[in-house]
Amino acid sequence: MPRIVMKFGGTSMAGIERIRSVAARVKREAEAGNEVLVVVSAMAGETDRLVQLCKEASALADPKEYDVVVASGEQVTSGLLAMTLQNMGVKARSFMGWQLVRASGVHGNARVEKIEGALLDEALKEGMVAVIPGFQGVSDDGRVATLGRGGSDTSAVAIAAGIKADRCDIYTDVDGVYTTDPRIVPRARKLTKITFEEMLELAGVGAKVLQVRSVGLAMRENLPLRVLTAFDDLPGTEIVPELGEDDMERNAIAGIAADRNEARITLTRIPDQPGTVAAVMGPLAEAGIQVDMIVHAATAGEGSSDLTFTVPRASLSQAVSALEKSRATIGGGELHTDDAVAKVSIVGVGIRSNPELAAKMFATLAERGINLLAVSASEIKVSVLVAEDEMELAVRVLHTAFGLDAPQGEAA
Amino acid sequence: MPRIVMKFGGTSMAGIERIRSVAARVKREAEAGNEVLVVVSAMAGETDRLVQLCKEASALADPKEYDVVVASGEQVTSGLLAMTLQNMGVKARSFMGWQLVRASGVHGNARVEKIEGALLDEALKEGMVAVIPGFQGVSDDGRVATLGRGGSDTSAVAIAAGIKADRCDIYTDVDGVYTTDPRIVPRARKLTKITFEEMLELAGVGAKVLQVRSVGLAMRENLPLRVLTAFDDLPGTEIVPELGEDDMERNAIAGIAADRNEARITLTRIPDQPGTVAAVMGPLAEAGIQVDMIVHAATAGEGSSDLTFTVPRASLSQAVSALEKSRATIGGGELHTDDAVAKVSIVGVGIRSNPELAAKMFATLAERGINLLAVSASEIKVSVLVAEDEMELAVRVLHTAFGLDAPQGEAA
Repeated sequence: MPRIVMKFGGTSMAGIERIRSVAARVKREAEAGNEVLVVVSAMAGETDRLVQLCKEASALADPKEYDVVVASGEQVTSGLLAMTLQNMGVKARSFMGWQLVRASGVHGNARVEKIEGALLDEALKEGMVAVIPGFQGVSDDGRVATLGRGGSDTSAVAIAAGIKADRCDIYTDVDGVYTTDPRIVPRARKLTKITFEEMLELAGVGAKVLQVRSVGLAMRENLPLRVLTAFDDLPGTEIVPELGEDDMERNAIAGIAADRNEARITLTRIPDQPGTVAAVMGPLAEAGIQVDMIVHAATAGEGSSDLTFTVPRASLSQAVSALEKSRATIGGGELHTDDAVAKVSIVGVGIRSNPELAAKMFATLAERGINLLAVSASEIKVSVLVAEDEMELAVRVLHTAFGLDAPQGEAA
Repeated sequence: MPRIVMKFGGTSMAGIERIRSVAARVKREAEAGNEVLVVVSAMAGETDRLVQLCKEASALADPKEYDVVVASGEQVTSGLLAMTLQNMGVKARSFMGWQLVRASGVHGNARVEKIEGALLDEALKEGMVAVIPGFQGVSDDGRVATLGRGGSDTSAVAIAAGIKADRCDIYTDVDGVYTTDPRIVPRARKLTKITFEEMLELAGVGAKVLQVRSVGLAMRENLPLRVLTAFDDLPGTEIVPELGEDDMERNAIAGIAADRNEARITLTRIPDQPGTVAAVMGPLAEAGIQVDMIVHAATAGEGSSDLTFTVPRASLSQAVSALEKSRATIGGGELHTDDAVAKVSIVGVGIRSNPELAAKMFATLAERGINLLAVSASEIKVSVLVAEDEMELAVRVLHTAFGLDAPQGEAA
């Protein structure tokens, strides 16, 4: 009998009417002959309310006590969903996080260590739907531990992996993963399938459909995911280990990502010698600043070079002060910064086998006169840094050039 | 080191400001050299909100799921109080009901079976204040079980008994136990001390300061209680196994109770023979109706008798229909009912040793022309049934006659 995990977010659980509609969806999967586990979030707004109470009680709240308070929201929705299911004639029971999920690491941001599957197996064997509060477990010292905000996606995937589920369906308030942000490109198209790697690249650069940690975990566990809306009967997007034969018709490029959270730093006329890049990156790493695109170009015949890289926009001033302190070690040159930049990326497993895709990207942008401030590439992604006010244009022309636009009348 | 349990009700926990004031009170007891455990209720209104959600989800909610939902309110206040204490420099931690309190009986109305004291002992030894959610524990099947509404008083007493506390202080929104209802007698006086037996009689007939179950449990465990207000620094009322030498100055009568929840049934001209009373009481007991005052008087020389008794006002029509069905067994007579009656009682351990107190009660009421519809007495209580519209007058004259009025200017 297929075993599936269904995960519902806070918007789907906000109020009894919506919980009833979630229950109807669960009932359908159970009656279709599946063993069903449901992982739920707290009602939308409830976790914020609880976090606010903690802040008022203590500016620096003990994470263990914080966890006791904020974990209660999912406990409430678990019980409510279980009784709603029973009321609809579906055998169901709720569990508590401490009965099932062993967590490790810091309180307030713990990781799932192990799922105690025996209790669950028993319930599923009896034909019960098991309802489980997301976002929480129990730590080694026997205390409630939460997984950090948005952690219910990760709970769901960890539980699905722990009980060897065949699939994990994440119901959320968007109806799937899109080729790009529909606010930028109204003709963005919902993807039927996407690989884990592509999803990670799209999530990492802006598409916030799923928690990144949950996608990484599903990839490691080889567990297929689906992203669906809880508010309609639409097919959603499958997230799979790799595309099959049948999917070859899909575009080589899965989507276009855009990220405004970038700032550029350029150091000009620094010594063109081994160790210079390390002398720059060292202090930044020490300050915990993540450096992204790096371009290092020697200035022909002058013995000096320029180094350009990006940091998160919020870390720019911190990065500058770290670099100022290391000026002597780096050796001379000027420091320029620019925080009106954005990163635009094409993402797709096709890039691996087809270098012409990158060339096509550069040509398309050049045609429109968009200047590239930096370029970086990985196996399945090519990113360019552009002026922020050219970002949306860049996304639109790439979306069209790579054949991603929905046919007229079929747009989101 | 003295070990005390402090229990705070929902009004005292309603919002962070009030939780801070509770924490200040706890801090004082801890700094005075006590080992302190705190049992907390949910914020006022929160349990009602959760119960309402359950009702909306399912008219006949599974009690196990109901418990999961409603137990969350105390979990929140436990965490909040623990972090507030830490913020004030007091070592503290919260526990969850399932870690400490083993409960038995039906879900939604369970009883405390056993306190797992080892974890608590450990925390207390480390100089920690232990904060515990009231109203809940864990059942044999490992699920959250609540103790029924108002159950936090009982939790507190059971935990205090389980860890051999020296005292249990119940902080509530009244400042103690009064000689009578101050709404009837403005010069009612707060009692410094009262015995468990007296408290049970006063509670059973109307004074709703503490949950009756918690008083019975404290009496069985020989655990002194104090009732205090959380909103002021007043001494409150001590509830003790018996009055000491020093308390002999206290009035022989602790207080006057009044109860409107009464209805009278009289059966006239029923056979004056063995078995008649049993023939009446049998059907009532079967119907689960509690019979209170019973007066059985033979009518001189006629071979018949009258039987008068009281039942809870809400059970009157049910009692009448049970009696109508048994008319044949009882044998003849007429049935009269009256629901405009009330019970007034004097309560005090002095009654045991001083029969003149009952006589004084009857004389006082007779002087004011108050007619007694029935009389009953136990070791520490004498009750009379009067017309409902004479109840308040009866309470006032008895309160004065037994010397309970506060001196002018000292009233509540």
